[in-house]
Amino acid sequence: MITSTSNQHMKQLRELISKSRARKKAGCFVAEGLRMVSETPADRIEELYVSQSFMKSAGNLKDLPLYLGSAQIVEDRIFRAVSDTMNPQGILAVVRMEEHSASDIISARSPLVLMLENIQDPGNLGTMIRTAEGAGAAGIILSRETADIYNPKTVRSSMGSLYRMKIAYADDICAAEEQLKAAGIEVYAATLEGSVPYTSPDYRKPCAFLIGNEGSGLTSGAVAAAGRRVRIPMAGKLESLNAASAAAVLLYEAARQRQLPGA
Amino acid sequence: MITSTSNQHMKQLRELISKSRARKKAGCFVAEGLRMVSETPADRIEELYVSQSFMKSAGNLKDLPLYLGSAQIVEDRIFRAVSDTMNPQGILAVVRMEEHSASDIISARSPLVLMLENIQDPGNLGTMIRTAEGAGAAGIILSRETADIYNPKTVRSSMGSLYRMKIAYADDICAAEEQLKAAGIEVYAATLEGSVPYTSPDYRKPCAFLIGNEGSGLTSGAVAAAGRRVRIPMAGKLESLNAASAAAVLLYEAARQRQLPGA
Repeated sequence: MITSTSNQHMKQLRELISKSRARKKAGCFVAEGLRMVSETPADRIEELYVSQSFMKSAGNLKDLPLYLGSAQIVEDRIFRAVSDTMNPQGILAVVRMEEHSASDIISARSPLVLMLENIQDPGNLGTMIRTAEGAGAAGIILSRETADIYNPKTVRSSMGSLYRMKIAYADDICAAEEQLKAAGIEVYAATLEGSVPYTSPDYRKPCAFLIGNEGSGLTSGAVAAAGRRVRIPMAGKLESLNAASAAAVLLYEAARQRQLPGA
Repeated sequence: MITSTSNQHMKQLRELISKSRARKKAGCFVAEGLRMVSETPADRIEELYVSQSFMKSAGNLKDLPLYLGSAQIVEDRIFRAVSDTMNPQGILAVVRMEEHSASDIISARSPLVLMLENIQDPGNLGTMIRTAEGAGAAGIILSRETADIYNPKTVRSSMGSLYRMKIAYADDICAAEEQLKAAGIEVYAATLEGSVPYTSPDYRKPCAFLIGNEGSGLTSGAVAAAGRRVRIPMAGKLESLNAASAAAVLLYEAARQRQLPGA
C-alpha cells in the first residue's frame, strides 16, 4: 500500500494531473472516478490506483472494471491529497494518449467537423467533445492555443467522449482550414459580421464549424481562411452565446439536416 | 478606505458571496467584475466596492459605470480576500434581487419557457439563462432544489442575462407544469423513454421545455406531469448531452421554427 505523497508514483500522478507539459512528455493523462475509468479502453490503461476505502467497498460495485486486480492501493489520506476532485471516489487510472491527425478526420465519409480556435475553459472543451460525439461529428480539430484535452476537467466533462472522438491539434489553424477546403469540406466560421443565419446553408454536404475563444471570438485570419460565415441569431441584449452552447446549436442543426439515426 | 477583513461590510460581503441563505435573508447578491457591474441596472445597486488599484487605474477605463463616485474603496489585499475569483478585477456590487412568479412568465405572448428540475452546477445554470435569453424565451421556471441563481458562478456565467430574464422558483415543479398546461402551454420533458425526436413537434405554439438534473435526469413525477416527451438523438455511445447543451439544442430548435428576428 502507498502511504506517502513522496512516493514516486504519487509524485508522478500530481505532475500528470496538474501539468500539461508533464502529460505531453509522458504521453499519458489521468482519468479519475469510477465512471471515467470504466469508460477507458482497458488496453490504454497504464496504471490503476484505488484508495483503501474504495477497495473495501469494491464488492458492492456493479460496474467494477474487470482489471481491478492490477490496481495499486493508496491510503485514503494520500489519495485525497493527490486527487484533482474535492470528494474523490477513490479510483483513477493513468491512460495512454492516442494521436490523431486532421487527415484521419477528413477521410471520414461526408464528414461533419468541429474546429476550435483558442478555447480556454477546460470544462467548455470537454462539453464540446461530448456534444460533437452526440451530433455525429467525424472529429475535432483544435488550434495549438486551445486548452489541453487531457486537463482533468476536460476529461471529466467529456464523459468518455474523449476516448471515442478523433481529436487533432493543428499547428496552424488557417492551414488546417485550407486543408479541409482542399478536401471539399466547407468551413463555416461562427461570427456575427458579414454572416448568414446558421440555418441557411446545406450541411448535408461535408462541412466544418469553426468556433473561437470565449472572450474574444475568432481571429480575423481564421475567419478569412474559412470562406463562409454563419451567425446564430440572438434575441434580447446578448452579445454572444457560451462557446459550448453555440457548438451545440450548430452541430445539431447539421445533425437535423442530416437526419441523424433516431431523428 | 476599508483595510480589514473584520470590517462589517467585508464580513457581510463574504456571507453574501458564500451563502445562499445569507443572500435570501438580505434580498441581495454580489455581482463581481467590470463587465457584470456595468450590466447591472443602476437602480438595483445597493453598495459598490472597488479596490485601491482599480480606483487608481479607473481613469483609463472606457466602460466605467457612472456611479463609481459612490464606491467604497477597499485595500487590494482585503479585496482579494473577499472576492470569489482567483484574479479579482477589483470591482463588485451588492445588487438587489428581483422577484418574478410563474404567472409573469406565462402571461407573455406565445411564450417559450425553460423549466429546470434540480440542476446542480451553478455554471451550467448561468449558461442556460444566457441561452434562454438568446433564443427569445419568455422566462425560466426552476424547481426549489435547483442551484441558486445568485451563486457567484451563476451570476458570472449568465453574462448579464440574469438581469434581463424573468426567473421564478416553483415550490412544486409538477404543480407549475399543470399551471402552464392550464394556460395552454405544451410542456415537453426532455427524456429518452417513450419520446419523439425533438424536431417533430410544432414549437410555434406556446411551449415549455423541461430539463432535469445533470446526473439523474428528470424525476418520474415531473415527466408524467409534462404530458409530452422529446428526445435529442445521439450518435456514438453517449448516454446524454450536457444539460446546458441540451437546453441550447431544444431552445434553438424552437427559435428556428419561430423564425427569430435575424434568422
